Amino acid sequence: MTITTPKGFRASGVAAGLKASGGADVALVVNDGPDFTAAGVFTGNRVKAAPVLWSQQVLKGRVLRAVVLNSGGANACTGTQGFRDTHATAEHVAAALRGAPKPTLIGAGDVAVCSTGLIGELLPMDRLLPGVTAAVKALTADGGPAAAEAIMTTDTVAKNAVHTSADGWTVGGIAKGAGMLAPALATMLVVVTTDAVAGPDALDAALREATRLTFDRIDADGCMSTNDTVLLLASGASGVQPEQDELTAAVTAVCHDLAQQLIADAEGATKHIAIEVVGAASESDAVMVGREVARNNLVKTALFGNDPNWGRILAAVGVTSAVFEPDRVDVAINGVWVCRGGAAAEDRSKVDLSGRDVRITVHLHEAEMSATIWTTDLSHAYVHENSAYSS
Amino acid sequence: MTITTPKGFRASGVAAGLKASGGADVALVVNDGPDFTAAGVFTGNRVKAAPVLWSQQVLKGRVLRAVVLNSGGANACTGTQGFRDTHATAEHVAAALRGAPKPTLIGAGDVAVCSTGLIGELLPMDRLLPGVTAAVKALTADGGPAAAEAIMTTDTVAKNAVHTSADGWTVGGIAKGAGMLAPALATMLVVVTTDAVAGPDALDAALREATRLTFDRIDADGCMSTNDTVLLLASGASGVQPEQDELTAAVTAVCHDLAQQLIADAEGATKHIAIEVVGAASESDAVMVGREVARNNLVKTALFGNDPNWGRILAAVGVTSAVFEPDRVDVAINGVWVCRGGAAAEDRSKVDLSGRDVRITVHLHEAEMSATIWTTDLSHAYVHENSAYSS
Repeated sequence: MTITTPKGFRASGVAAGLKASGGADVALVVNDGPDFTAAGVFTGNRVKAAPVLWSQQVLKGRVLRAVVLNSGGANACTGTQGFRDTHATAEHVAAALRGAPKPTLIGAGDVAVCSTGLIGELLPMDRLLPGVTAAVKALTADGGPAAAEAIMTTDTVAKNAVHTSADGWTVGGIAKGAGMLAPALATMLVVVTTDAVAGPDALDAALREATRLTFDRIDADGCMSTNDTVLLLASGASGVQPEQDELTAAVTAVCHDLAQQLIADAEGATKHIAIEVVGAASESDAVMVGREVARNNLVKTALFGNDPNWGRILAAVGVTSAVFEPDRVDVAINGVWVCRGGAAAEDRSKVDLSGRDVRITVHLHEAEMSATIWTTDLSHAYVHENSAYSS
Repeated sequence: MTITTPKGFRASGVAAGLKASGGADVALVVNDGPDFTAAGVFTGNRVKAAPVLWSQQVLKGRVLRAVVLNSGGANACTGTQGFRDTHATAEHVAAALRGAPKPTLIGAGDVAVCSTGLIGELLPMDRLLPGVTAAVKALTADGGPAAAEAIMTTDTVAKNAVHTSADGWTVGGIAKGAGMLAPALATMLVVVTTDAVAGPDALDAALREATRLTFDRIDADGCMSTNDTVLLLASGASGVQPEQDELTAAVTAVCHDLAQQLIADAEGATKHIAIEVVGAASESDAVMVGREVARNNLVKTALFGNDPNWGRILAAVGVTSAVFEPDRVDVAINGVWVCRGGAAAEDRSKVDLSGRDVRITVHLHEAEMSATIWTTDLSHAYVHENSAYSS
């Protein structure tokens, strides 16, 4: 059910005192092999946190032996000292693993680092490093859920997922992230493991396609984080080498599961909204239209108020450069076609918005391409949570 | 102090029963000449309301004799019937002016129409047309403030402005708009009048430059309306023909005044925020960065919470394609340089956010270009007002 379900992985989660709450805040994932191939996808934000810059460098070697993650501080916008701290954390992980009763002989360059929390402050290294030592000691073959808990920030539930193939290999994952879920990712940390045999190119292709179709299509508040990281590690411990298509499908299934858990737990959300754009001239048009609707504060507040205000949806479509004619667009909300040909159609009072799940369908009537973007409403709780977060 | 301050204009505002509140909801502005030159700027949204499509056509003649405006309904996404209704409204204005005790001999093609209110519903023509008749009867040479009141929707105060030149000509304006204030305009209706002598090219140049520097730089919630309209009418009644620079400066001054009134009255705002971007490689870079910060919900909620969370500002800058290096950016909040070189600098506790006015300065250290975008915070009141508006 998690990252330690695939064979060849150990994990742990411990409390190092980074979080004011005293909860678990340092997680460790170790790949015991026999393979150590890996791939990663990172935030598109040009302001990248130190751990992102570090992990991007590490991934150039296409090998990962361990991933250390902390909540309680993003180590973003922290200058050269922040980067030195990330480096020191990776060194500490490697040294502790080398010195463990069952030694793992690795260097800092085999260790990815992920951080999440407030931007702009240095991490308290005097607490983080002892936490890393404790996390190494706590490593177990069923430590996935503990790791998933240790990376939570404003998440209300830990996120785990798994996908098992009929021929004996498995993909598992953990994720955190509840705000800042955005276009190309969000302060979203995701670790996906598999015991399939797969080279780095196969992993990279699988992860990029999975990310494109899942994490890149959830958008809670349109804000792109400085720390987004999605890592995929393969141990090869199953001895089975799947076809590329099978690998991609399994990684996508786990990423989809995690993405839906993320959006379901987005900060202050009262609605889980799917925006399905059909009849588009291209997939990118469909994604563009879906994302614009997903980010429109007037649409999001209307849905919070259970108001099927389709005019705001049309106004959002109208600011895109997608191919469409305003007088040919149809809009359905939860199956009721409130707008046909750009004007009022079925009675909007027929729309039932009392439940948590909302499906908006925008039909552009241009061609056959489609895409779905998932988002949330904009609620009082969102404002409250984000106005009080750092103070 | 308003659109009837320049010589040659009459205006009125009456209650036609379009608004549930029973307040004034139909406004009329008439240019009595001797000149009737005009210019207009309209929403960039591709989903344009019927009155926008109509007024764009009318403006091709570069002459306007009258502008009729209604609140209580946007007449947007209303199909061919909506367009017929706009046309009928203009015909009715022209007929009523021709039949008035002091007849104005015009046709529908001389009448611009502006509407604001809920999208997607037809206007109640049985109430609007009698309202137009009443508005014609109510026309007076000091009716500007009444017109300004009649176009209010969620505005809490009417917006009027004036600029008088030393050599005897004047520019006046009225505006409405409190939500949906966005990039290239917003459900923002603005009428600006002048008694200067100015040809349509001069008016067009003055209005485009004024709009670019004022209305295009306020952004309350990033949502672009279907109905935004800014009209400039010249009567020539002063007999003075100013230089182009003088005309542009005067129109810009009135538009700036109105724009600041709009942002000050934005729905649910508790902060009036100026985002000043300096040291940019180009003006468009500065505008791009300012707008991205202005639209970032995490920045806006932080400011609502009096939280000088500069990391969120940097993260917003990072999603733009502007020329900048993350480790060279400085950020000040109300004069305190909380971020230098992309990392923490002065103590954030020194930032005083207790007042309504907030100034964020982002220094990109690339070149000498700059721009300022004005926005608001994202408050509980914004969510409340926009979740309850149409229901």
